[in-house]
Amino acid sequence: MSRVVKIGIIGTGRIGKLHGNNLAFSVPNAKLEAVADVHMNSEMRTWAQGLGVKKIYNDPAQIFNDPEIEAVFICSSSESHADLLIQAAQAKKHIFCEKPIHTDVVKIKEALAAVEQAGVKLQVGFVRRFDHNHKKVRDIVASGRMGKPHIVKVTSRDPEQQPMEYIGTSGGIYADMTIHDFDMVRYLSGSEVTEVTAIGAVNIDERIRQFSDVDTAIVLLKFANGAIGVIDNSRAARYGYDQRVEVHCDKGCVQNSNDLIDTAVISTKEGVFSEKPKWFFLERYHQAFVDEAQAFTNIVLQNTESPVTGYDGLMPVLIAQAAQKSMEEGRTVKLTELVV
Amino acid sequence: MSRVVKIGIIGTGRIGKLHGNNLAFSVPNAKLEAVADVHMNSEMRTWAQGLGVKKIYNDPAQIFNDPEIEAVFICSSSESHADLLIQAAQAKKHIFCEKPIHTDVVKIKEALAAVEQAGVKLQVGFVRRFDHNHKKVRDIVASGRMGKPHIVKVTSRDPEQQPMEYIGTSGGIYADMTIHDFDMVRYLSGSEVTEVTAIGAVNIDERIRQFSDVDTAIVLLKFANGAIGVIDNSRAARYGYDQRVEVHCDKGCVQNSNDLIDTAVISTKEGVFSEKPKWFFLERYHQAFVDEAQAFTNIVLQNTESPVTGYDGLMPVLIAQAAQKSMEEGRTVKLTELVV
Amino acid sequence: MSRVVKIGIIGTGRIGKLHGNNLAFSVPNAKLEAVADVHMNSEMRTWAQGLGVKKIYNDPAQIFNDPEIEAVFICSSSESHADLLIQAAQAKKHIFCEKPIHTDVVKIKEALAAVEQAGVKLQVGFVRRFDHNHKKVRDIVASGRMGKPHIVKVTSRDPEQQPMEYIGTSGGIYADMTIHDFDMVRYLSGSEVTEVTAIGAVNIDERIRQFSDVDTAIVLLKFANGAIGVIDNSRAARYGYDQRVEVHCDKGCVQNSNDLIDTAVISTKEGVFSEKPKWFFLERYHQAFVDEAQAFTNIVLQNTESPVTGYDGLMPVLIAQAAQKSMEEGRTVKLTELVV
Amino acid sequence: MSRVVKIGIIGTGRIGKLHGNNLAFSVPNAKLEAVADVHMNSEMRTWAQGLGVKKIYNDPAQIFNDPEIEAVFICSSSESHADLLIQAAQAKKHIFCEKPIHTDVVKIKEALAAVEQAGVKLQVGFVRRFDHNHKKVRDIVASGRMGKPHIVKVTSRDPEQQPMEYIGTSGGIYADMTIHDFDMVRYLSGSEVTEVTAIGAVNIDERIRQFSDVDTAIVLLKFANGAIGVIDNSRAARYGYDQRVEVHCDKGCVQNSNDLIDTAVISTKEGVFSEKPKWFFLERYHQAFVDEAQAFTNIVLQNTESPVTGYDGLMPVLIAQAAQKSMEEGRTVKLTELVV
Repeated sequence: MSRVVKIGIIGTGRIGKLHGNNLAFSVPNAKLEAVADVHMNSEMRTWAQGLGVKKIYNDPAQIFNDPEIEAVFICSSSESHADLLIQAAQAKKHIFCEKPIHTDVVKIKEALAAVEQAGVKLQVGFVRRFDHNHKKVRDIVASGRMGKPHIVKVTSRDPEQQPMEYIGTSGGIYADMTIHDFDMVRYLSGSEVTEVTAIGAVNIDERIRQFSDVDTAIVLLKFANGAIGVIDNSRAARYGYDQRVEVHCDKGCVQNSNDLIDTAVISTKEGVFSEKPKWFFLERYHQAFVDEAQAFTNIVLQNTESPVTGYDGLMPVLIAQAAQKSMEEGRTVKLTELVV
Repeated sequence: MSRVVKIGIIGTGRIGKLHGNNLAFSVPNAKLEAVADVHMNSEMRTWAQGLGVKKIYNDPAQIFNDPEIEAVFICSSSESHADLLIQAAQAKKHIFCEKPIHTDVVKIKEALAAVEQAGVKLQVGFVRRFDHNHKKVRDIVASGRMGKPHIVKVTSRDPEQQPMEYIGTSGGIYADMTIHDFDMVRYLSGSEVTEVTAIGAVNIDERIRQFSDVDTAIVLLKFANGAIGVIDNSRAARYGYDQRVEVHCDKGCVQNSNDLIDTAVISTKEGVFSEKPKWFFLERYHQAFVDEAQAFTNIVLQNTESPVTGYDGLMPVLIAQAAQKSMEEGRTVKLTELVV
Repeated sequence: MSRVVKIGIIGTGRIGKLHGNNLAFSVPNAKLEAVADVHMNSEMRTWAQGLGVKKIYNDPAQIFNDPEIEAVFICSSSESHADLLIQAAQAKKHIFCEKPIHTDVVKIKEALAAVEQAGVKLQVGFVRRFDHNHKKVRDIVASGRMGKPHIVKVTSRDPEQQPMEYIGTSGGIYADMTIHDFDMVRYLSGSEVTEVTAIGAVNIDERIRQFSDVDTAIVLLKFANGAIGVIDNSRAARYGYDQRVEVHCDKGCVQNSNDLIDTAVISTKEGVFSEKPKWFFLERYHQAFVDEAQAFTNIVLQNTESPVTGYDGLMPVLIAQAAQKSMEEGRTVKLTELVV
Repeated sequence: MSRVVKIGIIGTGRIGKLHGNNLAFSVPNAKLEAVADVHMNSEMRTWAQGLGVKKIYNDPAQIFNDPEIEAVFICSSSESHADLLIQAAQAKKHIFCEKPIHTDVVKIKEALAAVEQAGVKLQVGFVRRFDHNHKKVRDIVASGRMGKPHIVKVTSRDPEQQPMEYIGTSGGIYADMTIHDFDMVRYLSGSEVTEVTAIGAVNIDERIRQFSDVDTAIVLLKFANGAIGVIDNSRAARYGYDQRVEVHCDKGCVQNSNDLIDTAVISTKEGVFSEKPKWFFLERYHQAFVDEAQAFTNIVLQNTESPVTGYDGLMPVLIAQAAQKSMEEGRTVKLTELVV
């Protein structure tokens, strides 16, 4: 497999840099050819040069117009994803797009239509599907050896609360945090969510009330295949990034636990002490980000199906909206209620 | 502490025998003085004689009328509990009563009034509060060292489905299985449930539909102290009795895992194999039953507060009714909706 | 199995009382008929009466002469075991004898000859064989499914040092502590020890040097079946009773870990905290003592082979002597060197 | 820290390529400037070109003579290490040298003298010191918070036997496998080995007898600080690479366990199944190799002490010779017996 995919990254903030490093160092058949950021600055420029990138732009259009570039990573601010996605599709570039495509379902559908018309590949950035622990649980369930899924459980807690400025623009806990878990339950169950009941509480920081948001949440789910499920979230677990899943099936249960910082255990008169989960997503999902980029390179090179399709990008947004509506109205919301 | 409490057991089926054995062998300050069962037979008689019991009756009244007997264990069929409880109270006996006191809240209140009037002790048989693993989690939370509870999670799955004849008369999964977990969340959180959303599914055995019952259930809970919670149940986990709890608090998480059959681990080319959880409640809660009977003996001897009061017996019945109503009507039910 | 074995206990110190309680309460087909202790006192008498024992003696001969008594438990001080064993055999009583039979191999052989001549059952008190975790490892190895054993490892550490007065009369760490592990490696490997290299160190308490004893020891072993092994001991682990075994075989490894006080786990910013191993042998081997007494009752009732024979009682004493010699002389000692 | 160390690799077999990839991609302040291999071929050349290396040589002298190159990685065949090390030192290059420096202690001393005279840095490739799990145990012990070490235990087993051709030239199990563990016990204990007793057995493959070698080994150790220790080895664990360490100290025990392939656990009626340890050193020590190369780059850039000195390279060779002698002569060998 000696052919190389030349890739341009649009948006070189934290997540863009992360993908850039992986493409440059850890994905053999990818070549980081160009980067663009509307706020391109000297720090970004130095970073890109350090990776050997020569095409460094302010305007993403320069990437779209470059016939040498075969694919793009859309890593800009969330509200710009859909428009850039449409432009990239029209330029016939294959697309890796960070989540969410957009918060407006109509806009997402427009973007997906553009992709379909262009016939390009699209992979949405739900990186947790590439985590070895989650993938293993899903693969066992998907193999059918455990029988039908009955109960799908996801624990998903951030180590510490994000800054209030961030939370205020995040769209609320369901659209911001739980959206990853909505993708995860679809991935694990192999089925679609049909009903949502969401409750939330303010337990960590009273200031979050100004945004009508919560910091602690539990979401109850029904699936089309008869399974039922639950997700619990906290914006401040304190002990690290708690990312566990569990699928109880006909023949028993499949679950995983967190990757720990190390395996050392200290036993003394006072008790037994061991390490915490890896601190946050950069630590826990480090390899998953590499594997995600590798997977994207593979679908381009081998012309295979995307492992995280545009539809996979759309559905969690819808479920998050149902959850938000459920919490606000204090009732169960069917997905069919949402005009799509 | 040389004084001994002379106890009569009413109802010598499976659970009555279990308590009888514990009182006879494992609770130093208890003396099993008498047993009564309206269906007394030679097998029960032989069992009682084997324990050195001389007073073996058909009629519970013979126990109530015996001035030597200070306390009774009500272990008869569920629908008879409340009436026997009233009679025992009127006879001024201290009372250990198996759960549930009754399925009718009015009847429970009548019974509790009789207890209060008589001034006798009452302990209700929610045995899981005496399990060392659950008690430890609760004690840590109750100590306040973890801060306020945010999320309370209970996993509670039976190893194999009970016979259909049993299920048909059980009152439904919430009244039969989840009732223990409703007690557990009150115990763990130190707070009262205010709202319930319950969903269920038939995943194990279609025959259960004839009773409008389910075999898989998840219940979402809100508590008066601001915490939120979730319970998941299955009537057939397959891998044993899965009884885990978790309380996420201000400063982190406290959780437990199952007691296993043994700690042996086999590592081969095929993978790593270890033992299952203890099979069912007789194995898992063996010591908890002893400790429960010891606790009852202690409150009688030391004239202290009951660790599981009549009110603790009442509330899970109410929550179970709210859960049943929630599932039937497909909506969140507030506890205040139930006319009590 | 309605027949009952009437048993007399000789020696009602700590270990005699432990067996007495188990025989009285937890072994259905045993009846504690008599107790004898050359230092019988009112505290022992009260204890025995509490168990319903009527025959309470100073002189063990009264037990040997009682035709109603079928079996004895020899629980007296170590140096008296062999003589009492001989007297019991001559009186045609079946015998459970606490370890060690004697420290003098010649004396042990005399005692075993008396047992053989009398044709009575003898079970030696190596209680760890009845621990569910150790038994499971041994059963897996003995089943042959893992292939031939290659490496046998035993970790065996006491929680805190015994009093110096005890240590001074204990015969040294190999005869006192490691002797249990010498039995364990024979049990696990299904083979005989052929060579021993023992090293020791004084790491805990310098006062032990007055007895030419050590508090930390490692013993290297060769077995007749080609396996090799190692035991490590400490007189003061600090974190509880550390009792782990591991057998590496052709097809992989079988190992166990300690039973913990409970399974609760606390996760905070500071780390993850869990419970220690059960504190000492009374806690860890509680059920093993019951199962040991049950096993003895079974061999008497069913006329089957002893699970811990006189030979099993002899061999660890020999191995301990080889270990002592090895440490003293700073060289490997073959078992054949010891004149037996 | 913008300065970069330009590095030449000598020997581009498996281990040389591994270091080359890490230097090229994962060590920010290293630049892979040149590679040399006396058997340079087109496959090696392609690999080096893929990393952007322009200086590709047959003769290591071309690296030594290149004034742009500041440091070398000696990754050639073992017997050539010492001579290349001397040449590199004379050329004033800083040196990372794969283990062992040599099998002949005299030759090692010659090499170390050359390094000292040249005043260059030397780091020996005992990569396990950089494993996060081992490093954590060592750091806790070295901090002194657990008190003095009493018992040091290392379990070290390869997943499957190496080919017989390899074993025949490996110098025997102690020089080939255990040498890493001899380094590990020095690292963990912070002390020197004073006495060794080694036993071995042929349990896996009879063909190994032709080399007077064994496939299963246990080594007993005494340390200068009073601790005692044990290492066990198997050439074929079957279930993966088993790499565990344990240090029991005054105040308790510090131990680690293996990194597993993933954390997924399957519970069914048949039992509980989980994953094996990572398969072999490439998987388990992947990050440790990166950290080792980073550490070397740091000592060059910051002119600090080597974390694995020439003396650290010498001592395990001596201990391995003592172990070999002990096994052959069937006795304990003091390190002072070896003429050094």
